[in-house]
Amino acid sequence: MLVYGRNVAKEILKKNKKVNKIILQDGFDDKELISLIENSKLPVETLQKSKLDHLSNGNHQGIILNIPDYKYKQLSEILNNNAQFLVILDHLEDPHNLGAIIRTCEAAGVDGIILPKDRQVQINSTVMKTSVGTLDNVNIISVVNINNTIKELKDNGFWIVGTSLNNSEDYREVDYSGKIALIIGNEGSGMSKLVEKSCDYVVKIPMYGETNSLNASVAAGIMIYEIIRDRK
Amino acid sequence: MLVYGRNVAKEILKKNKKVNKIILQDGFDDKELISLIENSKLPVETLQKSKLDHLSNGNHQGIILNIPDYKYKQLSEILNNNAQFLVILDHLEDPHNLGAIIRTCEAAGVDGIILPKDRQVQINSTVMKTSVGTLDNVNIISVVNINNTIKELKDNGFWIVGTSLNNSEDYREVDYSGKIALIIGNEGSGMSKLVEKSCDYVVKIPMYGETNSLNASVAAGIMIYEIIRDRK
Repeated sequence: MLVYGRNVAKEILKKNKKVNKIILQDGFDDKELISLIENSKLPVETLQKSKLDHLSNGNHQGIILNIPDYKYKQLSEILNNNAQFLVILDHLEDPHNLGAIIRTCEAAGVDGIILPKDRQVQINSTVMKTSVGTLDNVNIISVVNINNTIKELKDNGFWIVGTSLNNSEDYREVDYSGKIALIIGNEGSGMSKLVEKSCDYVVKIPMYGETNSLNASVAAGIMIYEIIRDRK
Repeated sequence: MLVYGRNVAKEILKKNKKVNKIILQDGFDDKELISLIENSKLPVETLQKSKLDHLSNGNHQGIILNIPDYKYKQLSEILNNNAQFLVILDHLEDPHNLGAIIRTCEAAGVDGIILPKDRQVQINSTVMKTSVGTLDNVNIISVVNINNTIKELKDNGFWIVGTSLNNSEDYREVDYSGKIALIIGNEGSGMSKLVEKSCDYVVKIPMYGETNSLNASVAAGIMIYEIIRDRK
């Protein structure tokens, strides 16, 4: 996987994480990074700016790192480890949202984050940047089919909680003791119908404006802290 | 002010908001937008892609709108209107955070958002995009000096609430009845010293991970919904 930008590169090099190769723009002159790179003794390739533009599709700030792909955890591993609170992402699209949700889950001590393999933003450079170093402290599980995973979680004693504005109760009225799996829906369309049907509780965060929608990572933050409210 | 991108352009044209001029990329072919533009009878200029790149510094998707600058409200106006809950931004940098906070304030019925004129991200194209149409339903006040504004708010009976990890009490332990002004600190450095000193309550959102930081808009969302918890 390619990740880019000076802050992400610094974080990776300072933590001595595995890097396959470093690609620098011709004339790169960030002193702190050059010193980190020299100390690392990693292979470096220097290329023209246009090549880096092509590789990164974005703002690389003169440095691209080729690092091993993110290593997902297995659900069985997390369940065997007595998980009590999981977050399931139902096809999120925005890497800023995914990064902010990972950061909130790390802060709140969520035991695992489950995301579908397809039609869902995966761990990429923007996610690494937005999650500011928390990626190493959370368990992320990639699954083929969310609905099958929800069934498995129910068999393991989890209560499934989703959010929707329709046919839902106030999020403050539910008892969140016990094992909880919280579903965060897609930014535009919310939870898919099948996922919504499988919820034990569908709750809403009350809104008093005209637009009636919260940013997905903000809604996730409010829900996550509500669920741990009576636990910690 | 220049704003860009197809979604923002559609929103502005559909709502018949004031537009000074539309700048299109040569060969622009979005049928819905072309029909909106024709109906609007607004002046249109067609330019090469490189010119639009230069004007927008970013992803314009072939369309830039020149619209009147955002019109800020006066603090006196909001206070005269019996404001009960205000949010003060202490030098935020990230337009995604500002947009998400505006959206949360609209949903939660916050009476006004106060931001400093300098060293603070202002209302721009990214903010418009992230706040998804809520900008028209909130009161935003631009002030020269936050500390003077805090004094004025105190004189008007407001309690000042800030967040910090140091010398602070659990955010769930405070009584938020009465008039509240909530301060959201800078993404990296938090509240400035002088602002922190003027707080009546400094609270923390408890964190259980290693990194101990939440995205600014997520922290704002948790605090804002905590403050309205017992009001609505």
